[in-house]
Amino acid sequence: MLILGLDPGLGITGWGLIEAAGNRLSHRANGRLKTNTASPLATRLAQLDALLTALVAEHRPAAAACEEVFVNANAQSTLKLAQARGVVLANAARAGLVVGEYAPSLVKQAVVGTGRADKAQVHAMVTRLMPGTTIDGPDAADALAVAICHAHHLASAKRGV
Amino acid sequence: MLILGLDPGLGITGWGLIEAAGNRLSHRANGRLKTNTASPLATRLAQLDALLTALVAEHRPAAAACEEVFVNANAQSTLKLAQARGVVLANAARAGLVVGEYAPSLVKQAVVGTGRADKAQVHAMVTRLMPGTTIDGPDAADALAVAICHAHHLASAKRGV
Repeated sequence: MLILGLDPGLGITGWGLIEAAGNRLSHRANGRLKTNTASPLATRLAQLDALLTALVAEHRPAAAACEEVFVNANAQSTLKLAQARGVVLANAARAGLVVGEYAPSLVKQAVVGTGRADKAQVHAMVTRLMPGTTIDGPDAADALAVAICHAHHLASAKRGV
Repeated sequence: MLILGLDPGLGITGWGLIEAAGNRLSHRANGRLKTNTASPLATRLAQLDALLTALVAEHRPAAAACEEVFVNANAQSTLKLAQARGVVLANAARAGLVVGEYAPSLVKQAVVGTGRADKAQVHAMVTRLMPGTTIDGPDAADALAVAICHAHHLASAKRGV
């Protein structure tokens, strides 16, 4: 089963594709979708939408996963993130994908073993869990992490845990 | 020139279509796009996207307009609104529409003459500016208001004001 993890952002949306076969996870691909910072907001959101449509058409995942979003100290950043996230979720649902949503602490718990891990620890553990993989920066690492979290969740649900 | 005003929301997105011929504005249609509150977030966003696609295909506006968004006291409401807004902006841009974005105070200024008007005043003035029109609630009134604001803005730009 192919799971597409997504870390939405207006400028950069990280993505990571993993294959889950029972408890065995393996890396398939990861990368970044970038929008043109010189374009107006609506155009950038449409660019993100088009890039994600192409990505899903190429890889045909069976499920998607995304971190939950919270309002943080920088209100403008939060709003940009939330608008990009809306586009990403709508796109995935339009493609027929069920989107798993997980709190950031749950994603960290799944990957590092503690909900209080920092970004560098997440990146390091994702690299260890997916040996031999070149990860396209922290956004792609976060995307792989949420895909791993979703795979664990699906495996637990199957075992009835 | 047909202008589509949009007041995005996850549950209800108000819309209002006006025709601008020079300084003369006339009402064409208005209404609400509603998503199913029982569906997951991603599904609701995809519903909104599909409803808006159908609306734009039916009316073929030449431009769109939308209020700017700010983080308010209710963070969860703001996030829902911002995600819906992202879908709306991406949809409009995908349809080839340029989306005018206006601060709420500017919209009120355009319709009521003061940036500090309340929702009821906006509704009342929209009704007066578009006589004989039945307005489908406050969200549709807000959508018509931002369409009127956009029409004024385009007319001023043309006059070089």
